[in-house]
Order: sequence, then structure tokens, then C-alpha cells
Amino acid sequence: MLKNKDVVFEPEFVQALIQIFEEGIVFNKTLGLKVSTVGPLGAVARLEMRPELIGHYGHSRIHGGVISASLDSMGGLAVLAAIGARHMDESIEARLQRFSKLGTIDLRVDYLRPGISERYEMRAEVMRLGSRVATTRMEFLDAHGKLLSTGSAAYIVS
Amino acid sequence: MLKNKDVVFEPEFVQALIQIFEEGIVFNKTLGLKVSTVGPLGAVARLEMRPELIGHYGHSRIHGGVISASLDSMGGLAVLAAIGARHMDESIEARLQRFSKLGTIDLRVDYLRPGISERYEMRAEVMRLGSRVATTRMEFLDAHGKLLSTGSAAYIVS
Amino acid sequence: MLKNKDVVFEPEFVQALIQIFEEGIVFNKTLGLKVSTVGPLGAVARLEMRPELIGHYGHSRIHGGVISASLDSMGGLAVLAAIGARHMDESIEARLQRFSKLGTIDLRVDYLRPGISERYEMRAEVMRLGSRVATTRMEFLDAHGKLLSTGSAAYIVS
Amino acid sequence: MLKNKDVVFEPEFVQALIQIFEEGIVFNKTLGLKVSTVGPLGAVARLEMRPELIGHYGHSRIHGGVISASLDSMGGLAVLAAIGARHMDESIEARLQRFSKLGTIDLRVDYLRPGISERYEMRAEVMRLGSRVATTRMEFLDAHGKLLSTGSAAYIVS
Repeated sequence: MLKNKDVVFEPEFVQALIQIFEEGIVFNKTLGLKVSTVGPLGAVARLEMRPELIGHYGHSRIHGGVISASLDSMGGLAVLAAIGARHMDESIEARLQRFSKLGTIDLRVDYLRPGISERYEMRAEVMRLGSRVATTRMEFLDAHGKLLSTGSAAYIVS
Repeated sequence: MLKNKDVVFEPEFVQALIQIFEEGIVFNKTLGLKVSTVGPLGAVARLEMRPELIGHYGHSRIHGGVISASLDSMGGLAVLAAIGARHMDESIEARLQRFSKLGTIDLRVDYLRPGISERYEMRAEVMRLGSRVATTRMEFLDAHGKLLSTGSAAYIVS
Repeated sequence: MLKNKDVVFEPEFVQALIQIFEEGIVFNKTLGLKVSTVGPLGAVARLEMRPELIGHYGHSRIHGGVISASLDSMGGLAVLAAIGARHMDESIEARLQRFSKLGTIDLRVDYLRPGISERYEMRAEVMRLGSRVATTRMEFLDAHGKLLSTGSAAYIVS
Repeated sequence: MLKNKDVVFEPEFVQALIQIFEEGIVFNKTLGLKVSTVGPLGAVARLEMRPELIGHYGHSRIHGGVISASLDSMGGLAVLAAIGARHMDESIEARLQRFSKLGTIDLRVDYLRPGISERYEMRAEVMRLGSRVATTRMEFLDAHGKLLSTGSAAYIVS
């Protein structure tokens, strides 16, 4: 889909991106999101289930809001990586600065199946990166790779 | 919109509904959602800002995922109340049991403005309550009543 | 919501805007959309039911696609009017030129009730007009004012 | 995703399904939608561009409403086929009757790129078919296979 598939990020850029995502975006830390991979074509992260993330005390289902929040964050990370790949001529610092300019315009989540799992995985890919708006698709899976939810979101990127 | 506007809930029902929402739905407690009012026509809740809910360490903005999660929960609460109003012939216990049968089908959130506030308010109303599907509209406001985000969601209700 | 509520459009601007909407946007003509009012705060239009717009031959219900298409168009018209109100210092021609720069980023429609009516009404209001993105809410009603569908959309406004 | 991938439809069922989609759903005929393939796993259709479908007289771009309407219809067709595959024990007639019970709950469309093409293709797949709700993903492409829009929708199926 995107033309920057041949870009290779510097390890320092990837580390800093992960650091911002996992620690700087404080609510991501509250959720417990951990980046597995992030590259010019998309991002994958994971989440260990914990009691605080439960939707209803009667089940051990993950709360739908954890899913929507994770997918919003994941789409943003994928957009950041795609922007980074487009601006490899800029310093690492300058590319990372773009993180604070990113804003979600809107988000849709489709809840396909209830989620009961010890661990979840989230994936995001950029469908289009324009000069002002980026659109992403995201997926939320259980530990067995079963698709629980899908999402799409638009971000303002400049 | 709905015909049950003249229904008056028993205080016990309201208290139990709030208890389930604020404590039983564990992730609502993690977020810190507090119900202000809930009735046959809709629900209002509030949220005190805390560092764990921040979107980016560089600002004190609330994370968009807190907004999407709150609005999903609020829509569900409004649907529960509307279902309760429709089934006033049932015992309180039977009406509360319906909470665990509710499921979000999908959610959309529009982020209008970044949120920087000490306190937030969320409102939800049921646009239609069918026998199988309910649709809601939600709003997320700052402490001055400024509209920050709007949402809509569909729920399976049987 | 918007600050331009005291703006009064020139009759020529309104006529030209309606002309573009009803005739220039060719598919709006195919649908049969007619503008009732358009001002800085929103727009209202109407649609006479015709056999070509039916969803299923067995009923006379309007096709959901007529609703989604109308609401997309209506949101765009409301955004155009809001942009016009913000740029009253520009010539009418310059403001109208902005029509061709408008693009829908995404659209959501909630179908609340099936529509069987001789005539429909559509309403749109701008929730936020930014420098790059505008967000709208729309409603689709039957001839008795019953709400059949709601929508929201984001537009790129450059 | 779905378990009915080994189902083979009777030619009469496929023909009748296409007949209802292209002719019975009158607005599909107004648009000019033609089914290319339909099976238990999804559906593909096409649309020849015509002046009535233009978005703005200044360009030859297809109107976004044609896209949203087509994707809504396509998701519905894919759901119908998936329901048909689940009920192969029923007569063809009984399975076709289910068409009139299908209703769209909601629809989201992401417009990635403006569409200027002589012919368009639409694809839909069912992400989940439940006993009451089905969720689909759809794509809208130009004649060169370039992805112009994506969509997702929920349908009530019983």
C-alpha cells in the first residue's frame, strides 16, 4: 500500500518510539501496552490481561474500552512510523517531535467476539498517509490469534 | 424519543445499577467513572483527571482512549436504564441481571477538541431501543461544559 | 457551537450554493435532493420519494444507501456554509470555489428505523470547523418528523 | 474466518440472489451495481461509471454517496450469502426470503482517495455471522485495483 516499505529505521529511532509509546503516552502504560514490532508498514503490540482491565466482575472478559483505547493508540503508532519513514532525511529527534502533533480525528471499533484470554495482540497498518490526514486499520486478537475486534481511525498528521 | 419517560426507578435499583457500573465493571473503576444521574432517558457521569489518564507526558491532555472507553461504558449504562424502564414488571434483581447480557456491537468516537481539564463529564442517551439492538449517542465535555468529543454506539440487548 | 452565528449571507451566495449542491453535484440531482435552508449554522434539505430509491421491491422502504449518500452530501453542505461564514471577506466566487476542495474523510450512519414515507428531510450541523478538518452531525427524518437515521462525518477543508 | 467455506450453492440460488440484488433492490439498479461473484465467503460486484454518478461537475469523480450506498449493499449481499450457506437444509425459496429480513444497523466508510475511473469494483466479506448480528468489511477499488475506500457495517440478521 505504502511506498516506504524499503525504509530501514535506525535502532535508536525505534527504541525512542517505543519508549514514548510505552512510557510517554501515560495511559498506554496504565493499560500495559507493549510494542512487539514497529516498522514503516505497521505496528504490533501486546497486552497481558490483568484484573483492572476486566469488563464485568462476573466474567473475566476484557472491557471493550481497553480494546478501543488500545486500537486508537496502535493506529497512532503506525501513523507515526509511516511519517518517520517518509522523513528519513530529518533527524531522529525531529521525527519523534512529530508524535506530539498527531491527533485522532475519529475512531470506529467493531466488536466481533467477547475476549477472554491471558494475553492479547494488537495490529495496525496505515491504509493511506496523506499530507494532512492518515487512515489506519487495526485488529485486536486473543492469544490464539482469534480476531476479536477490528477498528479503523483517521488522524491529523501535520 | 422513548416512551418510558414517566417511569420512576426504585432507589434500590438506581443504587445497585451505580454499584455495578462503578465497581462491578472493573475497568470503569480503573478509569474512575462516577455516575451523576441515571434514569429512563439517559445517564450522566463524571471523571476526575489523574496523571494515569494522560495522553502524552508533554501535555496534560486526556488520552483519547479514556474518552472512547468512557463513552462505550456510558452508552451501555443508558441502554441498561432504558431496558430497566421497559421491564418495570420484573424484579430489581432480574433487571440487573440484564447487565451481563449487554454487548457492544460497535462504537464511533469523533474527537472534536483536545481535552485539558481537571474534571470531565460524560452524557449518554438512547436514540432507539429495539428488541435486539439499541443505539445511543454520547458526549464528552470538559469542566466548563465545552464539548470535546461525541460518540455513537450500537448494543445487542437481548 | 460556532461563533459565526451572526453572519448573514448574501442572497446571491445562497442561490449559487444551492445551485451547485442541487445541480453541480450531479449525484445529488440523481437522488433528487432539494435544499430547504442553508446558513452559517447548518443546512436542511428534503427528498421526494420515488420508485428508483426503493430498497426492496417487496416494501416501499427507502434504500439505506440513499440515506448514507444524502447525509454525506448534507454534512458537506453544512461545512461549506460554515467555511463561507468564516470567509465573508472573500468574494462570493472565491467562497464558492472552496466547494471543489472539500473532501469527505469518513462517514458513519446509524439506521434507527426503516423509512417508509412520501417525503424525507435531512439536517446537518457543524460540530467543529478547524483549519484542516470539520466534523458534522446529520439527521434523516420522515415526513412526520420521526428520526430514522443519524450520521456523523469528518471532512478535509484546506 | 467462517466455517462454511466448503458449501457449494445451487446455480438457481446464485441466480436468484443476483436477480434480487440487481433488480429487486431497486436503488442498486439505479446505481447500476452488477454482481461478479457471490459465494459463502463473500461477494464481488462492479459498477460502470456514468455521468449521473458524478460528485462535482468540475471533475469526473464518483460521488462519495455512490460509494457508501454500494458498500452498504455489498455488505448485505455478503451476509445473505453467508446466511444461505448456514441454512443449506432450507429450500432455496426459504433462504431467499431471508433477504427481506436483513437490516443495516450501521455503516462506516473511510474515503482514502478520490475516485476517477471508468469502472469500479466492490468487495465484501463477512467478519462474523452471529445468530442476531453480522459484521462485514468492504472495499471499493478503481479499474486498476487501486483501493479507494474501505467500509465496515453491522447488520441485523434474524
